[in-house]
Amino acid sequence: MQDKTFLMIPGPTPVPESVLLDMAKHPVGHRSSEFSAILKEVYSDLKEIFQTQNDVFVLTASGTGAMEAALANLLNPNDKVLSLVIGNFGERWAKIAESRGADVERISVEFGQAIDPSVLKARLDADCDKQIKVVTLTHNETATGVTNDVKSLVSLIKEHGAVSVVDGVTSIAALPCPMDEWGIDVLVSGSQKGFMIPPGLSFIAVSDKAFEVFEQCKNPSFYFNWAAYRKSVRDASTPYTPAVNLFVALHTALKMMKKEGLENIHARHKKLATALRASIKAIGLELFVKDENIASYAITSILPPEGISVPDIRATLKKDYNIVVANGQNALKDKIFRMGTLGFVCDRDLLAAVASLEATLYKLGYKFEPGAGVRAAIEHLAK
Amino acid sequence: MQDKTFLMIPGPTPVPESVLLDMAKHPVGHRSSEFSAILKEVYSDLKEIFQTQNDVFVLTASGTGAMEAALANLLNPNDKVLSLVIGNFGERWAKIAESRGADVERISVEFGQAIDPSVLKARLDADCDKQIKVVTLTHNETATGVTNDVKSLVSLIKEHGAVSVVDGVTSIAALPCPMDEWGIDVLVSGSQKGFMIPPGLSFIAVSDKAFEVFEQCKNPSFYFNWAAYRKSVRDASTPYTPAVNLFVALHTALKMMKKEGLENIHARHKKLATALRASIKAIGLELFVKDENIASYAITSILPPEGISVPDIRATLKKDYNIVVANGQNALKDKIFRMGTLGFVCDRDLLAAVASLEATLYKLGYKFEPGAGVRAAIEHLAK
Repeated sequence: MQDKTFLMIPGPTPVPESVLLDMAKHPVGHRSSEFSAILKEVYSDLKEIFQTQNDVFVLTASGTGAMEAALANLLNPNDKVLSLVIGNFGERWAKIAESRGADVERISVEFGQAIDPSVLKARLDADCDKQIKVVTLTHNETATGVTNDVKSLVSLIKEHGAVSVVDGVTSIAALPCPMDEWGIDVLVSGSQKGFMIPPGLSFIAVSDKAFEVFEQCKNPSFYFNWAAYRKSVRDASTPYTPAVNLFVALHTALKMMKKEGLENIHARHKKLATALRASIKAIGLELFVKDENIASYAITSILPPEGISVPDIRATLKKDYNIVVANGQNALKDKIFRMGTLGFVCDRDLLAAVASLEATLYKLGYKFEPGAGVRAAIEHLAK
Repeated sequence: MQDKTFLMIPGPTPVPESVLLDMAKHPVGHRSSEFSAILKEVYSDLKEIFQTQNDVFVLTASGTGAMEAALANLLNPNDKVLSLVIGNFGERWAKIAESRGADVERISVEFGQAIDPSVLKARLDADCDKQIKVVTLTHNETATGVTNDVKSLVSLIKEHGAVSVVDGVTSIAALPCPMDEWGIDVLVSGSQKGFMIPPGLSFIAVSDKAFEVFEQCKNPSFYFNWAAYRKSVRDASTPYTPAVNLFVALHTALKMMKKEGLENIHARHKKLATALRASIKAIGLELFVKDENIASYAITSILPPEGISVPDIRATLKKDYNIVVANGQNALKDKIFRMGTLGFVCDRDLLAAVASLEATLYKLGYKFEPGAGVRAAIEHLAK
């Protein structure tokens, strides 16, 4: 049915109507006092969401741009980087570091697992002469639906002395990631996730320690240059022409987020994701991430029942129920499907999604008790 | 008056209502068949606008991002770059090249002038051992309102053998810049200019010769990597999550542009800019660019009359007539103001702008015959 599509992919995520309509206003001049007033509030509100006193830079670029903006301002050729890889997006950090000529070492785990802090500790302890300059990691691995224990990992990196660079693209505003309390040096995120606006903006917050390392970077990026962004944030401006309409959208979305409150937002994400997991189990499907302690509150990866294919599930959900869910990526393609409960998602959306998934499986011939998933969701949401 | 603001700065430029409303639709998934169909048409339409058979990459970034995407994929440290500087944006090429560790030589002219092809010829002729790898230049210098003779300049660069890298940010779709006919190697532009959509996207088209040089680039950008973009264009996809809503806006705007026709668009820009120049002269103000042959069809720089300040003119135009014009930049600040006639601008807008400028000057005490500017515009537009 036209205009009924509901996105439950890990991004873009659904956008509130008021955000869409504000975004559709005629662009204002990016050097005007009106726009500067918007920027001032946006920069201030972002610090609350990132739970930091550091400046948060807003880039006209998608999340991968922010990832490049992190490493392109830190690394010189042959610098030693340790990349903690639990999925495609962890691997992306490693590839970007390699594109800068860094000497990259990976700690990888089987997909569906998180990094064991004791493994990182052993590696960092062995680095007696402090060769490792930067450690990259992923908070919430979008490709698998696993959440790393960033608090413990960053604490080890801090003790070692390396710069911690964290991908919070699908975690910020979905699960707690208090930058200052945990001591994260560089934290990036994207607009089309927990921030409830369309893709096109991304965020990067930088600690003083990271900024000192940046000052030793020989060929930092021009477009993503931290010094230019820091100056601009402090002047309530932007270094280059920004995506004005997306900033206006962000301004509106941040007001909504403040109204709901960060703790309530985190609680909502936790409630929806755990309700979805309870439903999936009640339906009799298998969760890709077994361990509740590392299961993401933003993305849930699900195995199809035997004899029913991921493409059939996705196609029926889309065609008959106007819900879009994601396939697995690369080696996980057609092995899992991923449902996002990220951003502008409420209890009703979750119930509709579970009911539609049940209806889909019923149509595709899966033998189960229809309604069992919704019942589990109802019970879980009422807790 | 609320909601009446009309932008006559060099960007963002006014956006058509249908573009704004299409942009306000809920985002679609960027890996969906719907979005792929949009991309296919966008990529094809852009080739017509760039007048090229080369692929045109669309970046989620502003124009400066596209400029970095040009040089970051071409240069290795110590490469020799010749930058033709006729204003701030020509200087930006030089700075980006320097940020990549290149050895940059500048040919600069007094602001308000264009590059004399014979000066470039002499320099290139003197480069007997072909040390110069890349020559950067600006088609339409937004800071001054001067248009370079790109056809002649690129022809000389081609003869020498260097890679020509052209900033077409405010020229593409405003004045003729046939990439293939003129033999341009790398051509960049931005969305918030002739393309009539808000800022946030930029474009880069790359010749086969430039792509071969890219293949020798040791540390190309990851986010802006040409190989990733070329593969994606050919797959009707994007390498990373794009600014989906801006692509939808671009799709709509390109349809409008095709309907008007590229030659008609160019003719409209020429007519409006030359009418504005005729009006300015009739009002008795001085044009910053005296020579009609190098005056831009996108931006007109104007000196204020004696005793009346640029800030007063800008403030009155904005407050009383809801028209925003730009100040000069850096050394030209408060010395000139700049009026854009770029993108979604019609005869009525031009007449309103001239009349409002006259009303502004009248209020500020300038002695002249009110209506003289509008009369000149009416006569010029009727030609």
